[in-house]
Amino acid sequence: MSGITVGVLGSQGKVGQAIVTAVEKADDLTYTVGVDKGDSLEFFSDTDTQVVVDFTHPDVVMDNLKYLIANGIHAVVGTTGFTEERLETVRGWLAENPKVGVLIAPNFAIGAVLSMRFAAQAAKYYDSVEVVELHHPQKADAPSGTAYRTAELIGRARAEAGVGPSPDATTSELDGARGAVVDGVHVHSVRLAGLVAHQEVLLGTEGETLTIRHDSLDRSSFAPGVLLGVRSIADRPGLTIGLEELMDL
Amino acid sequence: MSGITVGVLGSQGKVGQAIVTAVEKADDLTYTVGVDKGDSLEFFSDTDTQVVVDFTHPDVVMDNLKYLIANGIHAVVGTTGFTEERLETVRGWLAENPKVGVLIAPNFAIGAVLSMRFAAQAAKYYDSVEVVELHHPQKADAPSGTAYRTAELIGRARAEAGVGPSPDATTSELDGARGAVVDGVHVHSVRLAGLVAHQEVLLGTEGETLTIRHDSLDRSSFAPGVLLGVRSIADRPGLTIGLEELMDL
Amino acid sequence: MSGITVGVLGSQGKVGQAIVTAVEKADDLTYTVGVDKGDSLEFFSDTDTQVVVDFTHPDVVMDNLKYLIANGIHAVVGTTGFTEERLETVRGWLAENPKVGVLIAPNFAIGAVLSMRFAAQAAKYYDSVEVVELHHPQKADAPSGTAYRTAELIGRARAEAGVGPSPDATTSELDGARGAVVDGVHVHSVRLAGLVAHQEVLLGTEGETLTIRHDSLDRSSFAPGVLLGVRSIADRPGLTIGLEELMDL
Amino acid sequence: MSGITVGVLGSQGKVGQAIVTAVEKADDLTYTVGVDKGDSLEFFSDTDTQVVVDFTHPDVVMDNLKYLIANGIHAVVGTTGFTEERLETVRGWLAENPKVGVLIAPNFAIGAVLSMRFAAQAAKYYDSVEVVELHHPQKADAPSGTAYRTAELIGRARAEAGVGPSPDATTSELDGARGAVVDGVHVHSVRLAGLVAHQEVLLGTEGETLTIRHDSLDRSSFAPGVLLGVRSIADRPGLTIGLEELMDL
Repeated sequence: MSGITVGVLGSQGKVGQAIVTAVEKADDLTYTVGVDKGDSLEFFSDTDTQVVVDFTHPDVVMDNLKYLIANGIHAVVGTTGFTEERLETVRGWLAENPKVGVLIAPNFAIGAVLSMRFAAQAAKYYDSVEVVELHHPQKADAPSGTAYRTAELIGRARAEAGVGPSPDATTSELDGARGAVVDGVHVHSVRLAGLVAHQEVLLGTEGETLTIRHDSLDRSSFAPGVLLGVRSIADRPGLTIGLEELMDL
Repeated sequence: MSGITVGVLGSQGKVGQAIVTAVEKADDLTYTVGVDKGDSLEFFSDTDTQVVVDFTHPDVVMDNLKYLIANGIHAVVGTTGFTEERLETVRGWLAENPKVGVLIAPNFAIGAVLSMRFAAQAAKYYDSVEVVELHHPQKADAPSGTAYRTAELIGRARAEAGVGPSPDATTSELDGARGAVVDGVHVHSVRLAGLVAHQEVLLGTEGETLTIRHDSLDRSSFAPGVLLGVRSIADRPGLTIGLEELMDL
Repeated sequence: MSGITVGVLGSQGKVGQAIVTAVEKADDLTYTVGVDKGDSLEFFSDTDTQVVVDFTHPDVVMDNLKYLIANGIHAVVGTTGFTEERLETVRGWLAENPKVGVLIAPNFAIGAVLSMRFAAQAAKYYDSVEVVELHHPQKADAPSGTAYRTAELIGRARAEAGVGPSPDATTSELDGARGAVVDGVHVHSVRLAGLVAHQEVLLGTEGETLTIRHDSLDRSSFAPGVLLGVRSIADRPGLTIGLEELMDL
Repeated sequence: MSGITVGVLGSQGKVGQAIVTAVEKADDLTYTVGVDKGDSLEFFSDTDTQVVVDFTHPDVVMDNLKYLIANGIHAVVGTTGFTEERLETVRGWLAENPKVGVLIAPNFAIGAVLSMRFAAQAAKYYDSVEVVELHHPQKADAPSGTAYRTAELIGRARAEAGVGPSPDATTSELDGARGAVVDGVHVHSVRLAGLVAHQEVLLGTEGETLTIRHDSLDRSSFAPGVLLGVRSIADRPGLTIGLEELMDL
């Protein structure tokens, strides 16, 4: 057995299985055990697991974290539903076990995280910014959560820098042509058979444009981000929110 | 003097100047004379001009064509405002001078013409089609006229082939996110500083997509299409509408 | 049972399974039977199969076709290895059964077929043409077969139209920067983790460019082309080579 | 007169004229005077100019800087030819006038600067990185200087992070297909009529890709970067090399 020992909560789910595979393929990580509904969390302690990945359900994730932190096990969490109140509770547990690190992140796709960061950094240097997101036609919401969040970050960065609105001389618009508007940023949602999940941030100023495009071609695209979390979290005690905090940006 | 002799109506306007330059640069064409407001149309006859390019104004273009056709001079026309009634009048003049050819086209950008043609041809083989057009922020209308026309051609091709609507499971939409809808085709209009005139047609089916993109980076992009018209029109007596009719597609 | 009855040769292979699934999902097609190694071809006759899809092996495809044609069954063939001699043999069999239609195609991805066709049609209207193909890093050959074929078609179209070489003032080149050259067309091969199979044809003239891009995001991208063949082949007796022949272009 | 007072060296050159125009259009800047060949540098002192922009020639730029620094005038310099020896000389002059700020930058296109920065930051999180640059066909060198520099920055970032080479299973390559290699990064150069100056950095890992694209559509694309320098340099005494140092990244 070599490297960091890693267990998986929800190891038989679709995402869980992909994470088990990714851990097993990594030379510097050793997969210990999976815990699913009905299994005991003590499996992790019994196998000297150092880091546990949790992609489960809001109903059980708090119990999971309570156990892991109390037992000195680091956690990388992709489960949703963390209110500010829940985060406070987790911080309280961590205060009692100050060596443990917990990462909670809404998005583990490295490209999505980088896209948002770069877009927010670049936003104030350009006159215009718009977002185009493109997804498979089974998607229920438009725009996507990532596009909405990206527009918010861009809007905030521009507001903080005192940048005015993007110029727009449109006087005659067919309803919807100019997209939705989120914090002053126009967002367009394309739905197309054959696509998976894609997003472009377009920034423009006199004579030049910058485009930051992220393509997820496979559901496995969260795996590299989860592994980055697994490798980094032991060196980062306390609560970390968002994968970008572990990145050197 | 070698090749086809070419004159220009409106030679001192912005477009006219660009056409004069393009004609002078072409080895197989010879520029004869420009006629502007106040000049006599007889300059063309006096200089044995074979083809005249007309980018003038709806108020004068009919008088121009009457003279040119009566004097056996072919015409390549980018001036707008041709109603069906006007076209009938031109056809009548041409019937009396059956060797003369006249091309009237709303769009001389070869790439725009090809994009529309290819999009219409491909449309029935894909489950989904959407159009994204991107322009400088001084543009008043959204979507662009070319995008509107492209969507109409796609919609018509799909209707004729009996293809159903593009799949779309959107149940929660922020107003405008899914764009405008033209003949069943979603059209999105981006306005961005630094851009000129650009359009993407996206087509998708299971596991694959096809994208046809046209970029106009300079106002001179009509020149190659005008020269194509100049070189072809003598061999095409009668009235031709649309540059695509001269292309081997 | 409704619509066309369809059988599959090699139904248990990866491609065969995908085709069975696609046939079963189509309302206007009925799946009859699969024939794999060791099974009798008579299964097809016994089940009144009208069209058989063959994605098998060069070693057995000729025997398959001999039986199918003799028994009045149409065939859609993606198996490779058809020399001119083999095609002649198939034509001979078809001459004896003039109502039977056989489609043999090297590429069933509709987007790839359309891309090549559109690129060849557009090539003579542009000063410059280059091809960029992008694939996963496990690919052994560079450029891809499709890119090579695309460049050949472009090169031929330009030669036939008497178009000169693309302008290129490069005097100082780092070895390989300008790509490979196929029939006068520069071809660039990108290999990138996360990609599947993608290709861009870039065409440019004064002030404008046209880009035709094809993305295969999934191995299933041949399915729509196979179904197009299945639906069309009964109305097209004799030998048809290439999916594009069945398309209305 | 309001805001920062700005003078221009080489004000009658193509670049200089564009800068004068940009300064005059900016509400927070006031254009004072242009100095060209034969004019006295004292014009700047006489007009209380605070910042001077220098896009001149390596032969004269050192004399210009000597005067400006000695007279307490900040400088924004796009002129090339700065060896380490020259930079040392400038640092010496600045040491004697510690309130003066000088910015020397090889590239004032904000998008090019951001692209390089983002590419270098993202490079270590991806298995694969390649660069595709696309320019007009009059360009003499391939790859472009910016692409070469981008590849160097990517190569260095990956080396520092201990990331191995991008995976590549190519065993059969048509000469040049895989591009040039700069510090382990494959670089492809497209030359196409109609293009100006464009670059894409493609990064890929399992299931996802990130693309950072920069398009310069007009020679005026250096203007926003020059203005950023003009507005920032007074608050940044001493020598600053590279526009990115003034950006909040």
